[in-house]
Amino acid sequence: MDGSLGEVSTPGRVADDGEGISAQELALAARNHGLPLEALRYEVTPAGLHYVLVHYDIPAAEAGTWRLSVGGRVRTPLDLDVAALRALPAVTHRVTMECAGNGRARLLPRPVSQPWLVEAVGTAEWTGVPLRTVLAEAGVLPDAVEAVFTGADHGVERGVEQDYRRSLPVRVATGEDPPVLIAYAMNGGPLPPQHGHPLRLVVPGWYGMAHVKWLRDITLADAPFTGFQQSVAYRYRQAPDDPGVAVTRMLPRALLVPPGFPDFMSRVRVVRPGPVRLAGRAWSGGGPVVRVEVSADGGAGWARARLAPREPGGWAWQAWRYDWTATPGRHTLSARATDAEGRTQPLEQPWNRGGFGNNLVQRVPVLCCR
Amino acid sequence: MDGSLGEVSTPGRVADDGEGISAQELALAARNHGLPLEALRYEVTPAGLHYVLVHYDIPAAEAGTWRLSVGGRVRTPLDLDVAALRALPAVTHRVTMECAGNGRARLLPRPVSQPWLVEAVGTAEWTGVPLRTVLAEAGVLPDAVEAVFTGADHGVERGVEQDYRRSLPVRVATGEDPPVLIAYAMNGGPLPPQHGHPLRLVVPGWYGMAHVKWLRDITLADAPFTGFQQSVAYRYRQAPDDPGVAVTRMLPRALLVPPGFPDFMSRVRVVRPGPVRLAGRAWSGGGPVVRVEVSADGGAGWARARLAPREPGGWAWQAWRYDWTATPGRHTLSARATDAEGRTQPLEQPWNRGGFGNNLVQRVPVLCCR
Repeated sequence: MDGSLGEVSTPGRVADDGEGISAQELALAARNHGLPLEALRYEVTPAGLHYVLVHYDIPAAEAGTWRLSVGGRVRTPLDLDVAALRALPAVTHRVTMECAGNGRARLLPRPVSQPWLVEAVGTAEWTGVPLRTVLAEAGVLPDAVEAVFTGADHGVERGVEQDYRRSLPVRVATGEDPPVLIAYAMNGGPLPPQHGHPLRLVVPGWYGMAHVKWLRDITLADAPFTGFQQSVAYRYRQAPDDPGVAVTRMLPRALLVPPGFPDFMSRVRVVRPGPVRLAGRAWSGGGPVVRVEVSADGGAGWARARLAPREPGGWAWQAWRYDWTATPGRHTLSARATDAEGRTQPLEQPWNRGGFGNNLVQRVPVLCCR
Repeated sequence: MDGSLGEVSTPGRVADDGEGISAQELALAARNHGLPLEALRYEVTPAGLHYVLVHYDIPAAEAGTWRLSVGGRVRTPLDLDVAALRALPAVTHRVTMECAGNGRARLLPRPVSQPWLVEAVGTAEWTGVPLRTVLAEAGVLPDAVEAVFTGADHGVERGVEQDYRRSLPVRVATGEDPPVLIAYAMNGGPLPPQHGHPLRLVVPGWYGMAHVKWLRDITLADAPFTGFQQSVAYRYRQAPDDPGVAVTRMLPRALLVPPGFPDFMSRVRVVRPGPVRLAGRAWSGGGPVVRVEVSADGGAGWARARLAPREPGGWAWQAWRYDWTATPGRHTLSARATDAEGRTQPLEQPWNRGGFGNNLVQRVPVLCCR
């Protein structure tokens, strides 16, 4: 009780064997939310159904007075308002975004953090200015190696008081693949407060932690950024003292629109015997998904689904479908995506201490009855 | 494994002593979401931040083909499309809505269902047609005692396959206090899918279960409705065989906008020493809130907050504020509302088996440090 931050902000931990979801994890689950899986039916996710993860508080941000500064290793520091960004040529990209911690709550042992099951995903049409346009205006100096992005959300995490801050290598920030955006619109409307109003970064193909919300500063730096969200959080590591590997692009994943109708509490699906059209979406940050397979027996046998191609230059999920014949009894439905780089989803989940990149195949329990 | 619904849909239960939040409760928490408490700053809640509870799936509903039927004990059965409703004189009401199960996850023992903490609330501007206008057009027959409202969401709950369905007494359905609406717009836009697109009922002052979403049928009945959501769920009862008392209007409650900034995991708030403006909202379904008191010592001492009056005829929460001086150390902030009928929030939570109407005063842990 000495009034230090360490009292209220403790180190990361994994849950004890058999430890249920804690009150702290539940408080995060009640604030942040996933995509209700039936909303996979929408090619573009309505804004209020897109997953959202806010580390601290949603800032009280006003578009009219918002400023974005661009500085550090640039020829001409900039101080832009939203109107100045809106005056630049705009682009729109349809982008699937997934939280790096999706699936964390199913890991054993369970890293204690935002307890996602499988639903931390969404696809939106983001409109804004290419980041490279703004960086070209500022003039990135040759010794710059990273662009550091600062959001307005402020808090404490694992004992470290901070603004949310992440970096990208200059070659990614100034590149066209992926086309990094400073976005001011989502699905044709202003960004909602929880999605970064009035400005956010969008980094197609990368997990959500890279898409810095409430973006207020970009600083070009001549050394790699070593802040909390880059060097402590969002690394694949096996032990606390393992330096780990940076979390970057999304691993391949397919999800099913759960068929039939649910039980309120168990969420088990009920279908009638006979033909059932299964459908879903599949995506990868490593390129197009080239194959989706479906299993109706918990992963013993797999059959190929019909998969829509990815739009050329696109960054959104691809629709797939499969015609299944339901027979009375219990079934477990799964779908498995493989991307153009040959990566596929595991049937047994690898483990890492932060609970990142968990693309274990989904299992949808179904009861078929008359 | 006989393929019956009872396999996947079990009776309601309360958690065992010390039982953590279960995977099933977590799955509900990941789908449904509360109001992030900092969003109490908005007088009208942006649509994606308003709490949402969906019993089954969000239906795939299209405004263009939607029909609302009105039948049963009426002179002239109606079959209306959305355009026909939009052609009638519209009204807009600002309404605070709270889930009847708000606070359930803090009960001991804990009823196992949607595990809300304190955040299942929101305020929106609902636009639509007064229900009494539509019922007058249909002509309610003198022997009708209740109007039964059916939504398009279909599922199983505690072994009972059902469309979501609730009733109101005819005197409430045809009355002006509260002004019951068939709403087609929220905050000036079409209803979002998760809030009942394209039509929902809004029953100002009542807990959320009465505001039937995806409204597709209204049937006037000459006997009280005894369906699942009326006679089994949403009753204050102490034991499974207790007939219980119907859940209707919201009990008084005040919530604080959490001051300062949070720790990511514990959500404990950090403030600096000195003056801190505390602010929040308070509401009751039983009339205006007439007093809000604030405690900075966990409920030992209370001081009166400045409270904005309720709009005449209004159904929305009222803003309140209180100037607190923070001193170094740990504090617990609380606010307590009292309504015009003299009801106030308890400091020790009464218990009921469904976990309804839990308006225990909020406790916000704060660390004040330099």
